[in-house]
Amino acid sequence: MKVSIGPKPFIQPNPVLVVGSYDRSGEPNIMTVAWGGMCCSVPPCITISPAKKSRTCENIMVSQAFTIRIPSTNFVKEVDYVGIYSGRNENKFKSLGLTPVRSEKVNAPYVNEFPFILECKVIYSHEIGVDTQQFIGEIVDIKAEEEILGGDGLPDIRKVQPFVYDEVGGNYYKIGDLVAKAFLIGKKK
Amino acid sequence: MKVSIGPKPFIQPNPVLVVGSYDRSGEPNIMTVAWGGMCCSVPPCITISPAKKSRTCENIMVSQAFTIRIPSTNFVKEVDYVGIYSGRNENKFKSLGLTPVRSEKVNAPYVNEFPFILECKVIYSHEIGVDTQQFIGEIVDIKAEEEILGGDGLPDIRKVQPFVYDEVGGNYYKIGDLVAKAFLIGKKK
Repeated sequence: MKVSIGPKPFIQPNPVLVVGSYDRSGEPNIMTVAWGGMCCSVPPCITISPAKKSRTCENIMVSQAFTIRIPSTNFVKEVDYVGIYSGRNENKFKSLGLTPVRSEKVNAPYVNEFPFILECKVIYSHEIGVDTQQFIGEIVDIKAEEEILGGDGLPDIRKVQPFVYDEVGGNYYKIGDLVAKAFLIGKKK
Repeated sequence: MKVSIGPKPFIQPNPVLVVGSYDRSGEPNIMTVAWGGMCCSVPPCITISPAKKSRTCENIMVSQAFTIRIPSTNFVKEVDYVGIYSGRNENKFKSLGLTPVRSEKVNAPYVNEFPFILECKVIYSHEIGVDTQQFIGEIVDIKAEEEILGGDGLPDIRKVQPFVYDEVGGNYYKIGDLVAKAFLIGKKK
């Protein structure tokens, strides 16, 4: 029997995305978000929805650009730190000993130590609810370290080793075993 | 050294969400989407971005409501089928022997056999790119079978057994081992 558990922000799982942005003075900031995901194929676009009060939101409203990094499990401590503490009170790159690099194609910094970076320019933005700003960023390029690429020259999820977030339990999980080939397992015989 | 791989719709991983909707005549349809995710906490909202040409998009433009189902691995064949074939050519509930049930709180059907359902009413919608319509749905209730709930009465990811999609390799993967407790592993000592 189905029971009602009320209106809650629960899907399982959420992605873990690290957003890079500059403030007006060129100070770099990074923030971890789980409210985000792909939203268009042509052109390729990603959406993120940070809190309006966040430094990241304020920065992107001005710069109209951001980077996204797909983090791997070996950086889980840094990624969690970046989600807990605000760029209003510290330079998180300095706190963590990470190196900000200006993106080639957009006005936003990325973390040099992170191997998988999306460079995004804002094409749309609007408010949602009481305290959230949604940005839609067109992905103008992806930069990846060769070590995470597969034989086809594209990011291999087994080498990227991303992790996901469960809002319900408040935990991060690895990607597990292969279930099936998509667009094949469900094909009519 | 970082190499450029161009603008592509690649984050890893994507969620797998089954969207339920009614057409004008009350015929139920379901579609699988990976372009979607949470986008607001207060009120809880989810965003999905189906192709404008899809039956699902056409339905939601009229009904202004949809359901989301978080699928588990034991339904991977059905979920993949629903992502491959269009509701323009068949009633996918009938094709798969699934039971449509009218949601209690919104004008949309859910799949009775699926244990984790979000009921959503559209609060915002706009076009992105050349062929995509983004919908933001306020989650007005979540319905869950008791068998997937943990001791706290909320969906337990180990019981839900969701899977994720990798657009790069075109595969579905299980959720793997615990990495760490979020908002704890990165705390300052």
